Amino acid sequence: MKKILNGTDQVVEQMVEGLVKSHADVVHRVEGTRVIARNDKRPGKVGLVSGGGSGHEPAHAGYVGRGMLSAAVCGDVFTSPTPDQIYEGIKAADQGAGVLLIVKNYTGDVMNFEMAADLADADDIKVEQIVVDDDIAVEDSTFTTGRRGVAGTVLVHKIIGAAAEAGASLDELKALGEKVIASVKTLGVALSPCTVPEVGHPGFELGDDEIELGIGIHGEPGFTREKIMPSASLAKQLYERISNESKLLAGDKVVVLVNGMGATPLMEQYVFANDVHELLKNAGVQVAKTLVGDYMTSLEMAGLSLTILKLEDEKWVDMLKLPVDTIAW
Amino acid sequence: MKKILNGTDQVVEQMVEGLVKSHADVVHRVEGTRVIARNDKRPGKVGLVSGGGSGHEPAHAGYVGRGMLSAAVCGDVFTSPTPDQIYEGIKAADQGAGVLLIVKNYTGDVMNFEMAADLADADDIKVEQIVVDDDIAVEDSTFTTGRRGVAGTVLVHKIIGAAAEAGASLDELKALGEKVIASVKTLGVALSPCTVPEVGHPGFELGDDEIELGIGIHGEPGFTREKIMPSASLAKQLYERISNESKLLAGDKVVVLVNGMGATPLMEQYVFANDVHELLKNAGVQVAKTLVGDYMTSLEMAGLSLTILKLEDEKWVDMLKLPVDTIAW
Repeated sequence: MKKILNGTDQVVEQMVEGLVKSHADVVHRVEGTRVIARNDKRPGKVGLVSGGGSGHEPAHAGYVGRGMLSAAVCGDVFTSPTPDQIYEGIKAADQGAGVLLIVKNYTGDVMNFEMAADLADADDIKVEQIVVDDDIAVEDSTFTTGRRGVAGTVLVHKIIGAAAEAGASLDELKALGEKVIASVKTLGVALSPCTVPEVGHPGFELGDDEIELGIGIHGEPGFTREKIMPSASLAKQLYERISNESKLLAGDKVVVLVNGMGATPLMEQYVFANDVHELLKNAGVQVAKTLVGDYMTSLEMAGLSLTILKLEDEKWVDMLKLPVDTIAW
Repeated sequence: MKKILNGTDQVVEQMVEGLVKSHADVVHRVEGTRVIARNDKRPGKVGLVSGGGSGHEPAHAGYVGRGMLSAAVCGDVFTSPTPDQIYEGIKAADQGAGVLLIVKNYTGDVMNFEMAADLADADDIKVEQIVVDDDIAVEDSTFTTGRRGVAGTVLVHKIIGAAAEAGASLDELKALGEKVIASVKTLGVALSPCTVPEVGHPGFELGDDEIELGIGIHGEPGFTREKIMPSASLAKQLYERISNESKLLAGDKVVVLVNGMGATPLMEQYVFANDVHELLKNAGVQVAKTLVGDYMTSLEMAGLSLTILKLEDEKWVDMLKLPVDTIAW
């Protein structure tokens, strides 16, 4: 294992330190915790908390700041943060109007965020929870009952963030979040595995000419292994499955996110984005906005995911375009 | 070679297409060329053109837009764009007040940008040129006479971009650019090589436990190969060389850029950033701003570079902080 770090047991601690030292103008660390919180408080605004295992950077700490999250809780690598840490995140995010938790659908995360919500209830902080399950690859998986939460989560952060900034109530944000979650679908592919520092060897193996379709962001199995294929063929496979699932029709409007998994050059992501645009054009589907880049990674895994958000409400695009003050959006 | 693309001869063409389709709100392609130009023209503003070989994305097209570059010219992978393409970039950037070319110091780039400037002169477009040579690793290298231009170029784009937006003249921008270039120093390290699509195999080899210090962004040799070491030791080596070169003293103010080379997780970049902050603190050097992320990559090379800009003028920080409308800043 060749990585830039000091001892595998200190990697998340030192990442968090490096992050808050580097971006002290936007975020701070809640002392004694692994909670990254935004610097500006706004009494009366609903707090937004997300988080999960580390190793997906810039998710989620990179999305803390004006216009997006109030706080992000950083677990160990690929491991849910503990309830007490999430509880600290809720307290940091609370500004008197309740706190919404945006959770990716993994059994450990859902359980721990729920326990944290219970702790906060006892403090009279009103907490609601939405669970993102955008990955259409498989129904249940290594760490999940139901579908996994992956890159689409970032679009949920952004839309909910904009609505919260505009003064929406906790109940309104929860309802909006559930509507967005129902409309966002993702499918990913891996070209190479990644290595969790504390494990020291790759999480799975792939042949020199193999790719895995439907991979999870922790290297959980997908639905098929195939030979490496041209970008246009790969785009077609991913797009058609998403399109079927979302029942995309000519005239529909969508937002597209091509997300790099960590080690995939932007050059390849843009080649793939070009193929996706071609497919959408041929299908008569209109693209209102496209994002390309490493939004939710899997350490140094090579691969990418395609996320399509079907716009049930055109205001979502304005919400996605609203300027923010975060590290990574 | 496992990459997401359609034919190695189409990769830059399709990347450019994917990029302009994805970000049509910010940039467009000058028809029939590989020039990415910003959408908003402002008569009387000096035009700023950069570019070079592709494979360093988001550099340079990701920095085209309000507050930064007017146009970027995309060469083949790791190959300078031709003079006629650069000339098209100059014409696209010209708004009647002259055009400044920001060139990384490689023999091919310097020659081709100069030839393009001559072509533009014949059109009565006033063109000046600044050459970035921030890489302190080696004096001459595979493609360079003198020092190479690397990640520090992005800080030059940003500061010059802010000054141009504020109405500085061509001569003022050239003088400012030369001052910034003299103050910015970079040193990089590679953990793994990258593969140019048209070549099909890695550009160099590194042992399982080896790293190369002083590597270039095209895999050009550095100054030493060593065994993989802790992040803190690596940070110390890079920092001390830069500090000596820049004659950093207690009380100095700096801007820090930790730049990922393509396949290095943000997690590792932040661990390294934490170590750099520690070194700067111990040296009594004040950090006015830190950037961490993949700003100038080398395809899927694993590694990072450290750039330190010594602030000769505190206004440079405000210029770095000024909001922009680009794809990637």
